[in-house]
Amino acid sequence: MEKAGASIGDLLKVTKNGFTYKGVLMPRSEYADDAHIVLKLKSGYNIGIRVTPDITVERLGEAEKPAFRPPPPPKGREGLPRVSIVSTGGTIASRVDYRTGAVHPALSARDLYSVVPELSEMANIEADILFSLYSENITPSHWSQIARRVAEHIRRGAEGVVVAHGTDTMGYTAAALSFSLRGLPCPVILVGSQRSSDRPSSDAALNLIGAVTAAVKAPFAEVVVAMHEDTSDRAVLLHRGTKVRKCHTSGRWAFRSVNSKPLARVVEGRVEMILDDYRPRGEGELQVLDGFEERVSLLKFHPGFNPSLIDWLVDEGYRGIVLEGTGLGHVGRYCYDALRRAIREGVLVFMTSQCIWGRVNMNVYDTGRDLLAIGVVPLEDMLPETALVKLMWVLGQTDDPEEAVRLMRKNIAHEISPRTGYGVSFVG
Amino acid sequence: MEKAGASIGDLLKVTKNGFTYKGVLMPRSEYADDAHIVLKLKSGYNIGIRVTPDITVERLGEAEKPAFRPPPPPKGREGLPRVSIVSTGGTIASRVDYRTGAVHPALSARDLYSVVPELSEMANIEADILFSLYSENITPSHWSQIARRVAEHIRRGAEGVVVAHGTDTMGYTAAALSFSLRGLPCPVILVGSQRSSDRPSSDAALNLIGAVTAAVKAPFAEVVVAMHEDTSDRAVLLHRGTKVRKCHTSGRWAFRSVNSKPLARVVEGRVEMILDDYRPRGEGELQVLDGFEERVSLLKFHPGFNPSLIDWLVDEGYRGIVLEGTGLGHVGRYCYDALRRAIREGVLVFMTSQCIWGRVNMNVYDTGRDLLAIGVVPLEDMLPETALVKLMWVLGQTDDPEEAVRLMRKNIAHEISPRTGYGVSFVG
Repeated sequence: MEKAGASIGDLLKVTKNGFTYKGVLMPRSEYADDAHIVLKLKSGYNIGIRVTPDITVERLGEAEKPAFRPPPPPKGREGLPRVSIVSTGGTIASRVDYRTGAVHPALSARDLYSVVPELSEMANIEADILFSLYSENITPSHWSQIARRVAEHIRRGAEGVVVAHGTDTMGYTAAALSFSLRGLPCPVILVGSQRSSDRPSSDAALNLIGAVTAAVKAPFAEVVVAMHEDTSDRAVLLHRGTKVRKCHTSGRWAFRSVNSKPLARVVEGRVEMILDDYRPRGEGELQVLDGFEERVSLLKFHPGFNPSLIDWLVDEGYRGIVLEGTGLGHVGRYCYDALRRAIREGVLVFMTSQCIWGRVNMNVYDTGRDLLAIGVVPLEDMLPETALVKLMWVLGQTDDPEEAVRLMRKNIAHEISPRTGYGVSFVG
Repeated sequence: MEKAGASIGDLLKVTKNGFTYKGVLMPRSEYADDAHIVLKLKSGYNIGIRVTPDITVERLGEAEKPAFRPPPPPKGREGLPRVSIVSTGGTIASRVDYRTGAVHPALSARDLYSVVPELSEMANIEADILFSLYSENITPSHWSQIARRVAEHIRRGAEGVVVAHGTDTMGYTAAALSFSLRGLPCPVILVGSQRSSDRPSSDAALNLIGAVTAAVKAPFAEVVVAMHEDTSDRAVLLHRGTKVRKCHTSGRWAFRSVNSKPLARVVEGRVEMILDDYRPRGEGELQVLDGFEERVSLLKFHPGFNPSLIDWLVDEGYRGIVLEGTGLGHVGRYCYDALRRAIREGVLVFMTSQCIWGRVNMNVYDTGRDLLAIGVVPLEDMLPETALVKLMWVLGQTDDPEEAVRLMRKNIAHEISPRTGYGVSFVG
């Protein structure tokens, strides 16, 4: 490395095992050890190359600084579909300074084009920075703001909207948009990245290209999450916003559809539908129902769970509780009195399962039947996280408890799958 | 059916598609609709046969009542290994009355042999009813009782102990036994069933045979969970007690090893090791460390999470909190003050991830570094449920906070996997 006189930001030609790689030398990050060189290829992808005795490195010059790369000429872009990218923060919405390794928000369409040049060929993009938040700091009031901003872009003529979002709570926001954007005429695609673009094997470029492809070409008008299918760079999956969950802390394939197949996938620039029962583009009148009640709690039951916690929520004026029970939808008998009191005082209590996969069924064992008798309402195969968001949304729409229970049990945005037996939804 | 004059409990010969099935007619359950006949075969397995026009049913007589089947003659059993089955309740520990369909606890070794006759060829079994509890009612004080009873059986000469347990909280109990039984000289196998033996495709017999096979033949002396590998009846997986989770409400393959491969599998009467780094049989001196501190809580963070809940736990005198954070181990910034106060007042706070798969890494983003600075301790790739049980156990062993943190970070029963990169631990 030193021999070649190369430094961070230089354009290099690296030859190894008969293969030649041309790209910009990236700073080492915690994911790249001393034994690897990390190059950003022209395609936008980063690769790590192991340093072995047979490697040769040639410095071709200083790389063009991406931040200063001129945007593509505007000619020809008039005919392209209009896509808005609403940025809320997170790794996907950042741009790396190749010199310092520091991460900055990608502020403009120009920035986006400079990081992922392919975008300029695909759509006429309007970039809109709504917030710059790590997604663990996103709250229900942010969901409302995102819903309203997305609707604004659609009303102004966007043919698809991409929402760049941190991955930590992207599943929760996807559910919130699924419920609050009624009568959607076009797709709304949430996208994130698990590794920022200064790391080898960053997923930012592929996910963003997949999201914009879906915004332009998808035949459906639903809220989905666009993320890597697997460890290859072949495809991006489009998961329904109510059925998706981040199931790995760091893998690029972390987002999985639970109790459902993904809705579609983007592969080689095409959108391939996996499910065929979807809301088509172009129909309906957009309506934003963006009220969320925050006095709703998700409680995960565990051995030794303290039922006084339920009493505390009642005393604090909570209006709804989603239980993450065990198995088919159970909690210990020692919680019954607290649940009885909560329900007597008007708190709505619903049951989901901490198993994550599968459906609650409270008719199999006495425990389940007792809970039904107390007034706990089972939520079929709804994800606990989706159930929480839905209950916040439902109690934001109505003050009538019977109507709230009816809405919770009603399938509004594919959050409840039809019963199809015990399909294997994961293997491992 | 009526034509053949058959009624529940009769021995039938059913012919369909050229295949002949002989077995005892079982009562219809909620899992068997009118279009199926359910037969219990001689092997102990149940099958559901779809009623089609080409089916023929012949009544062979009244079946022998399993409850009255004489136990196998004692001769020859003296040479068999001694295995104890400690029953705590749950579907696996029940026996169906073939006449009424009611479920009773299987009380004696004789009952077990009558339900699963193969057991008498495998081991000299001592059956011991400790409780008859649905596992959602099992609490940390039950874990202590189970640990002490298992130890008693080992000290009296059992060469392996099987613990029959409801599946709902079997993962938590498996973790509790993994920590509290130190210096184990033989395997301890928890076993459950997802469908009771009156249902088509019950997994009770295969799981119990697999568990007893492991108790007799496994070369390891660890606590594991024995459950169906997949939808076939081919193999039973042996999952480490600290790395296993019920990941489906009803599937027979619901139990999965997370962030680890299963330790071994039982197939065709043999135990095949999958991992080779295990504690061997026969070593060490058994010690029961069965104290569990119940003032420990597992809190799942979510958007809109109320940090006053943390204050409430502090006010209630809680000694430990395990956070199920988002992604690599984050919670919203609006929780920091409450966490600071909790830690200042001596509450130990640990971080796991609600992603379930993967490892927390609080050095990647500011949020994580802030939480480390506040004093939140990351727990690598430990399951949230295992972390909860371990913290209850650690605080049951020591009052010294530094020692408690040291023990939480120390690998005691394989609850922390070595870093091996981003291995795909599930696909779906």
